[in-house]
Amino acid sequence: MRESRGLTIQDVAKVAGVSPTSVSNYLNDRMGEMRPQTRERIARTIRDLGYTPNSAARQLKTGNAPMLGLLVPTVVNPYYAELAVAVDAAAQKKGFRVILCNTQRDPERELAFVRELVAYGVRGILAASVLHNVSAMSALIRRGVAFVLFETLGPDPGIERVDVVSINHVLAAERAVDCLVSLGHKSIAFVTATPLTPHRLTRLTGFRNAMQRNGLGNGIVLTDEDIPVSTAHNDADLAQFGHLAAAQLMSMQPRPTAVFATNDLLAIGILSGLYKLGVKVPDDISIVGLDDIQLATFTSPPLTTVRQPFAQIAGSAVESICARLADPARAGTVTYLEPMLVERASTARL
Amino acid sequence: MRESRGLTIQDVAKVAGVSPTSVSNYLNDRMGEMRPQTRERIARTIRDLGYTPNSAARQLKTGNAPMLGLLVPTVVNPYYAELAVAVDAAAQKKGFRVILCNTQRDPERELAFVRELVAYGVRGILAASVLHNVSAMSALIRRGVAFVLFETLGPDPGIERVDVVSINHVLAAERAVDCLVSLGHKSIAFVTATPLTPHRLTRLTGFRNAMQRNGLGNGIVLTDEDIPVSTAHNDADLAQFGHLAAAQLMSMQPRPTAVFATNDLLAIGILSGLYKLGVKVPDDISIVGLDDIQLATFTSPPLTTVRQPFAQIAGSAVESICARLADPARAGTVTYLEPMLVERASTARL
Repeated sequence: MRESRGLTIQDVAKVAGVSPTSVSNYLNDRMGEMRPQTRERIARTIRDLGYTPNSAARQLKTGNAPMLGLLVPTVVNPYYAELAVAVDAAAQKKGFRVILCNTQRDPERELAFVRELVAYGVRGILAASVLHNVSAMSALIRRGVAFVLFETLGPDPGIERVDVVSINHVLAAERAVDCLVSLGHKSIAFVTATPLTPHRLTRLTGFRNAMQRNGLGNGIVLTDEDIPVSTAHNDADLAQFGHLAAAQLMSMQPRPTAVFATNDLLAIGILSGLYKLGVKVPDDISIVGLDDIQLATFTSPPLTTVRQPFAQIAGSAVESICARLADPARAGTVTYLEPMLVERASTARL
Repeated sequence: MRESRGLTIQDVAKVAGVSPTSVSNYLNDRMGEMRPQTRERIARTIRDLGYTPNSAARQLKTGNAPMLGLLVPTVVNPYYAELAVAVDAAAQKKGFRVILCNTQRDPERELAFVRELVAYGVRGILAASVLHNVSAMSALIRRGVAFVLFETLGPDPGIERVDVVSINHVLAAERAVDCLVSLGHKSIAFVTATPLTPHRLTRLTGFRNAMQRNGLGNGIVLTDEDIPVSTAHNDADLAQFGHLAAAQLMSMQPRPTAVFATNDLLAIGILSGLYKLGVKVPDDISIVGLDDIQLATFTSPPLTTVRQPFAQIAGSAVESICARLADPARAGTVTYLEPMLVERASTARL
């Protein structure tokens, strides 16, 4: 996307051969009475001139920096807190401010937040959890609201004109397993909350891929269905689930020598459960997490994990919003970013 | 505050002897041309009838649940993340939704967020960090915006009609010190980011009070000025500061036998620094934190800490907002809540 070059609505109007009011109406999503040809012409001119939605959005009716809405399940999971702060920083560079909503993965809250943000004039929404109500979102997208998702969609997402930004979760899981295999581990457990979300499902796929590629069969998979924690799929309870999972792992015969936890918060819970049992990490068992939240540096021992590049994810998402606002009709895009293994002290040679 | 009893704007208008439009204008802060007597009469009627701002706010122009704005420095500090989620839950019970903004303690961001929230029709703001621009906030308060602060104000706050909800931080620090003294510790260090905020200052006061009351002098105080971490007062870097502080603590002569960390995130950093140095907690040194974030249960060892009652704080804050919206002219209130010591495994008898 080209940078803004100080172009104004007047410049766009002149080149498109329409009135500045039409351009303003287009930018503010007041296109009720606009002829499709006019709409097309304005869209094309904006694209050709490289008139960025950044400067365009500044001219929205509040006169202040325009807002983006960010939906996360709950900032109590530090992964979502850090993603939110990274989105804040990336958005600020483009002249946006971010308002943050905890959906608790509740379809009703999610839809209500989106509708209210749109009613307040917000035209860009970033969503870190699955969108439940696809038809309602589609209707908003047709009205010009830009959506970026951080969750990969399934093969038939049912939404057009949505952009997805995510690490490659299959690859992330493979990196974790390959790290453990390279250290000599063969009996590896994957611990995950019930894999209901695309993220968790693709991580499971990656785990199985890597185990099979290394000739280690299917590996051990432990979910919260094996250890009933009433609310384990509530993100805030992942540490508690990990704490309980530790005891379960230690009771297995044969005992796994290494664990890949689906995220760092879960890994922190496992570390705490193992500490309570007097099991030494990494002497008795190796642990790998996923996310690389800041606290992964400050566990005892510091956690080996697969890093999500928060700044890159956030930057790419905000760029997608800008591109989408400039050209609402463009096809949906999927941006996969590279996960990176960060070796710390929770893993050791078998 | 009484509960709503299904009263409508029409009921209020009838009792006050004004038009429903006037009541609606009052509720929507459009009082530019309203006579003071009319304003007073509507305010009194709303109060007398127990017409709650909850049901009132539902009738705001978006037609959806009304919004409250919540400003926090950054949700990367789990304390603010958990406070935000508790405020969400308390607000939901009263029919509000919460939008969350990370101010990074930046006066400009803080003011911009508040102004934009108000421009979007938000009439209640909760702020978890100090408000920098007192005169701008006062102007908004005079226009009927309700503010609740989670930071105690100084003796001359310079803002009228603001409600404060907070634990008693002096008492919290005293509880931490008294716990360590009761375990036989005499050489106790207080570790804090530079005490620039009222919270941190009052905790320092509480630490000194308790040390002196126990005949232990002033105690040891270690701040980030002793260990330059460029950004230690940025809340996200507290764990890093704690990690570095651990080495400093261990090099002191005589070495303190116990540490009170001004918050749990800092305590987590100290635990991590001690782990790296091979210092055993609590055998070699005892640690007490403050906040009782969820992760305090999952450190190795689990952290003894002073609990902030998140649900009570949030509930009280949302009630204050409701009361203030119902009666904008009432005097400011200060609600102090009781902190509670939670003993886990990071403290032991000397």
